[in-house]
Amino acid sequence: MLKVGVVGGGQLARMMQPPAIALGIELRVFAENADSAAHLSASTVGNYLGEDELLAFAQEVDVITFDHEHVPVDLLRKIETAGVAVHPKPEALVHAQNKLVMRRRLRELGLPQPAWTQANSEAEIRDFLDSYGPQIIVKTPIGGYDGKGVRVVSDVSQVSDWLGNLADLGGALLLEQKVAFKRELAQLIARSPSGQTQFWPLVETIQKSGVCSEVIAPARADGAAAYEIALAVAQGLDVTGVMAVELFEDEKGNMLVNELAMRPHNSGHFSIEGSVTSQFEQHLRAVLDLPLGSTRMLAPVALMLNLLGVDDSNSFQEQYPEAMLAAPDIKFHLYGKAPRLGRKMGHLTILGEDLEAMIQLGNQARDLLYKSRTH
Amino acid sequence: MLKVGVVGGGQLARMMQPPAIALGIELRVFAENADSAAHLSASTVGNYLGEDELLAFAQEVDVITFDHEHVPVDLLRKIETAGVAVHPKPEALVHAQNKLVMRRRLRELGLPQPAWTQANSEAEIRDFLDSYGPQIIVKTPIGGYDGKGVRVVSDVSQVSDWLGNLADLGGALLLEQKVAFKRELAQLIARSPSGQTQFWPLVETIQKSGVCSEVIAPARADGAAAYEIALAVAQGLDVTGVMAVELFEDEKGNMLVNELAMRPHNSGHFSIEGSVTSQFEQHLRAVLDLPLGSTRMLAPVALMLNLLGVDDSNSFQEQYPEAMLAAPDIKFHLYGKAPRLGRKMGHLTILGEDLEAMIQLGNQARDLLYKSRTH
Repeated sequence: MLKVGVVGGGQLARMMQPPAIALGIELRVFAENADSAAHLSASTVGNYLGEDELLAFAQEVDVITFDHEHVPVDLLRKIETAGVAVHPKPEALVHAQNKLVMRRRLRELGLPQPAWTQANSEAEIRDFLDSYGPQIIVKTPIGGYDGKGVRVVSDVSQVSDWLGNLADLGGALLLEQKVAFKRELAQLIARSPSGQTQFWPLVETIQKSGVCSEVIAPARADGAAAYEIALAVAQGLDVTGVMAVELFEDEKGNMLVNELAMRPHNSGHFSIEGSVTSQFEQHLRAVLDLPLGSTRMLAPVALMLNLLGVDDSNSFQEQYPEAMLAAPDIKFHLYGKAPRLGRKMGHLTILGEDLEAMIQLGNQARDLLYKSRTH
Repeated sequence: MLKVGVVGGGQLARMMQPPAIALGIELRVFAENADSAAHLSASTVGNYLGEDELLAFAQEVDVITFDHEHVPVDLLRKIETAGVAVHPKPEALVHAQNKLVMRRRLRELGLPQPAWTQANSEAEIRDFLDSYGPQIIVKTPIGGYDGKGVRVVSDVSQVSDWLGNLADLGGALLLEQKVAFKRELAQLIARSPSGQTQFWPLVETIQKSGVCSEVIAPARADGAAAYEIALAVAQGLDVTGVMAVELFEDEKGNMLVNELAMRPHNSGHFSIEGSVTSQFEQHLRAVLDLPLGSTRMLAPVALMLNLLGVDDSNSFQEQYPEAMLAAPDIKFHLYGKAPRLGRKMGHLTILGEDLEAMIQLGNQARDLLYKSRTH
């Protein structure tokens, strides 16, 4: 039986379970804690920095892949040396772990991105503000996600804490032009070790407070440039598995690379119901070097709405009767996480033709789930 | 968290796992053995006839339901007495456990079925042969499935072993007219304890050697009569959960009830990809008395092909590279069972418009999986 080991027990590992069950693949998860979202497949509970535990976990599977991008590259190289395949490979993954490394590599490849530089000092930040201000984006090269590690800055004092702690954040800060964008987009691509690639349609991502709120597939934009960029990144960085390229579309219609994620991604959750092959099944196929599946859409439009925790008590499941009655066509996804304000706890997916009607229905269902019974 | 307990660890329990994961429902399985198809969710491994074990299992869940229909009604009544819901209820399930009870009840409800009688003696069988021969169908009221417990009989000597063992087979034999049918069909319906019902399209089932080989959804036949029969059975027998009504369409176009299954059914596997709500998700919703989901088809036609074991060594997974390359649009399902000749080991699903092309593609992919590498 084919065996895939996933480091990290979050919702991405959880959502790999259904296609693993369908394909008869044994999924083994190295989880952080016993009640992780992917606990059903947890064969190890421990710290992924623990070399011995991680190596022992890897020896039992055909390939190691990831729910998150935090495993140090040195540790992954040791797994490869021990004879176990790792996908994406450490040489590729480093670009998703360190945003400065990513920016440099994209520049080498000649790919479009916002103006950027690295900075170690207040003076360098002031210079960049002078050129690109009044506001710029400052990022920590490592450790950021979902809006963390990213600040909109108009004065150097707003990042003085980071400047005082550079060693922990990647040795320098990444400064980026604040792009006046028309839309945020994401291009999902899968690539196998043999070099086969498959694209899903370009999607539009709607962020609220730095966190993805909705995804519209396909985007109301021309995808040709995004496909080319994603293919160039996947091939140029030798990416294996599923990768999401987050893009800005600026006011002139140019596509600029914002971020890379080398794993299934929130922008691809629509594909669970929306495509013949979901990003989670495709990731399993890709890391096992099986032929990739069709990414044909099963409806003209798919809409995904994230479910973010509203308090410490509403798990949303108590609200199923009302929401399911109102929306028999909506697909409900909950990740089995304890409720917490702002936490990504699940998502909804709607397939259809009329985007405006789908948005209305989706918001209605989400509002019903968000309505706490205790109030 | 909602908790559903399933008695039986076969592929039907296995295919309840993906929707349980999506909906954040904890699925607990009472499995026969440690390597059952649904072992991922097995919280108990034991004998379902063991009252203490089964009651202890039931105490930990919100509702008990089934992968198979073999749990004695008396035992289920004890679970209900202990305060745990059982769906389908024992009063309904008895009709799926005993084919004579089913035939009597359908007669009371005035529903169309083949001519039938019960027999305890050679003389009664000879009489029925005189009226309906040269061939009749003889069934054991209990214990039959997938062609077992069913014989085509032209002489009483062909069931003398059964006549000598009536006590174990239900106390009498069921004799049925051998219907000259144009097609075999199945109507899937879900019904919740609150009385909500949902239908999938009528499907056509193609049997080979008494085992389902392919299912075409929707059937190339008018579904109106089948819907009415299924609704009358579901309401008349107070069925809860998913039920399949297997039907014959005779040469005049009449629909006659062949068999009932009170659980997700092989004829509904197409719905995993083919419908907004699969039979497995719907069964979970129904037994939890949640509102039922839409059964709208996501393509004009869905074709399901069963994968039956070809020998003791080909698990079909070794053949994935060839089959997946040839058919990127096909959905592959393997149940994690050890290979054995004739065993239901998985299935394939194709969505599309052109049934003939789909049949050709499906047979090509199945042939590639069946091709043993050792030959």
